[in-house]
Amino acid sequence: MSASLELLSSQRAFGGWHKRYRHQSASTGTAMTFAIYLPPQTAHGERVPVLYWLSGLTCNDENFATKAGAQRVAAELGLALVMPDTSPRGEGVADADRYDLGQGAGFYVNATQAPWAAHYRMYDYVVDELPALVEGSFPVSGKRAISGHSMGGHGALMVALRNPGRYASVSAFSPIVNPAAVPWGQLAFSSYLGEDRAAWAAYDSCQLLAEAQPLPTLVDQGEQDSFKPEQLQPEALQLAASKRDWPLTLRLQPGYDHSYYFVASFIEEHLRFHAANLAASG
Amino acid sequence: MSASLELLSSQRAFGGWHKRYRHQSASTGTAMTFAIYLPPQTAHGERVPVLYWLSGLTCNDENFATKAGAQRVAAELGLALVMPDTSPRGEGVADADRYDLGQGAGFYVNATQAPWAAHYRMYDYVVDELPALVEGSFPVSGKRAISGHSMGGHGALMVALRNPGRYASVSAFSPIVNPAAVPWGQLAFSSYLGEDRAAWAAYDSCQLLAEAQPLPTLVDQGEQDSFKPEQLQPEALQLAASKRDWPLTLRLQPGYDHSYYFVASFIEEHLRFHAANLAASG
Repeated sequence: MSASLELLSSQRAFGGWHKRYRHQSASTGTAMTFAIYLPPQTAHGERVPVLYWLSGLTCNDENFATKAGAQRVAAELGLALVMPDTSPRGEGVADADRYDLGQGAGFYVNATQAPWAAHYRMYDYVVDELPALVEGSFPVSGKRAISGHSMGGHGALMVALRNPGRYASVSAFSPIVNPAAVPWGQLAFSSYLGEDRAAWAAYDSCQLLAEAQPLPTLVDQGEQDSFKPEQLQPEALQLAASKRDWPLTLRLQPGYDHSYYFVASFIEEHLRFHAANLAASG
Repeated sequence: MSASLELLSSQRAFGGWHKRYRHQSASTGTAMTFAIYLPPQTAHGERVPVLYWLSGLTCNDENFATKAGAQRVAAELGLALVMPDTSPRGEGVADADRYDLGQGAGFYVNATQAPWAAHYRMYDYVVDELPALVEGSFPVSGKRAISGHSMGGHGALMVALRNPGRYASVSAFSPIVNPAAVPWGQLAFSSYLGEDRAAWAAYDSCQLLAEAQPLPTLVDQGEQDSFKPEQLQPEALQLAASKRDWPLTLRLQPGYDHSYYFVASFIEEHLRFHAANLAASG
């Protein structure tokens, strides 16, 4: 265990342990909080693969942990879950007086524009720093998969597409697939990355998918999700995938909305999808 | 559907529907909010049994709904879940400047003392008014079971013990089994019922169990629950049960605390216990 990890809480769940930690992040220059679920297999010395979960706007490490019911399936499958926060936080960290920019809305990018560039480096945190910390501190293997919801679905897809070989599979619930083309993404990218849209392409899954190495990809989208027409537009990802025979499974789920009731309803299938791909990976 | 039910939200979950309603309660003389989960079987005209869930201190109808993961199992078993609030609420309702008395802490009693007697009539609400409303408004059968957590575990046991024939089974997580003998219960009962301890006996599960008709009873208690030694004392219920061969299964779960991670870890077993008893009931 790294001496730099401060244990905030440890709770038994489904025979394993749900733990929350705080640590000083080199990426963000702030204290960062994350949670990890260690399944029961780890108590017997087994090193297990990790599913990284990226949360959506306004969330922190606790929303998925308390509402998705994922630990039950992770315990069965022998999968660790790692749940980072969605941005740096605190008094010295820039913020905006709205829910979709600033603290709780880091969009998993490395900001280049003032006042955000000082701390908003969630891409580096999620891709490099956090996995290195987790793999150096806990009984996990080097195998990884990644998933997320809404802004975190964008994060999961984008991070996986940019880093071939790093994840065995990617999945998302209600992801912002084309942030450069929708209001949430445009506000975030113009603020964090500036007005030069060339800089946005590196964080836009629909654009990245045109060039990326194929990767097993599962996306669930609720048909009654009120954000679907304007902010999510899953058909844009479908179109990009269809142009190059990308292994995308996109499922439109009738009657479901944007909430964690939707995530909870299908999380078991996502975890089984990742477990199968992790098992098949080298 | 009763015209007096105001639908607050409706969300798809596990193939069924999670709905929240507000209505004017004759018991409390206030507006009351409750949630119901209707499993997918009800969409095909089936009338399903109901599990009533009573929540703990500080909770409302949403804690169990969002954190326990019970809908998944309810959907499989064809069981409706009904989740009332834990007290009357609002500006005209008496309150106390602490978490364990007043709003959010109704203890499922009919208060007799000022200022509580005006609205704190949660016993009548949970035992009579809410089931009548539910059975007159939704596709449910007259079969009922009841469960709860902490203060709600007290409520479930107490209500079931006082009403033979009304529930097929009762279960509880971390219940306050002997409220007349522990600080949480003594504060609530002296406030709501007055100093005459004879009035307390009607709401104390350990005392009620000495006279009640046998009923299948499942209790789970986390061994690391910080409230166990002072407030919960499950061994008092065990002792009362052992004196008369009561069908109590009390399980001490090593490592688990008082949280919803504990409830979520074992809710599936509770729902299967109730489904089996509901199926066996006349």
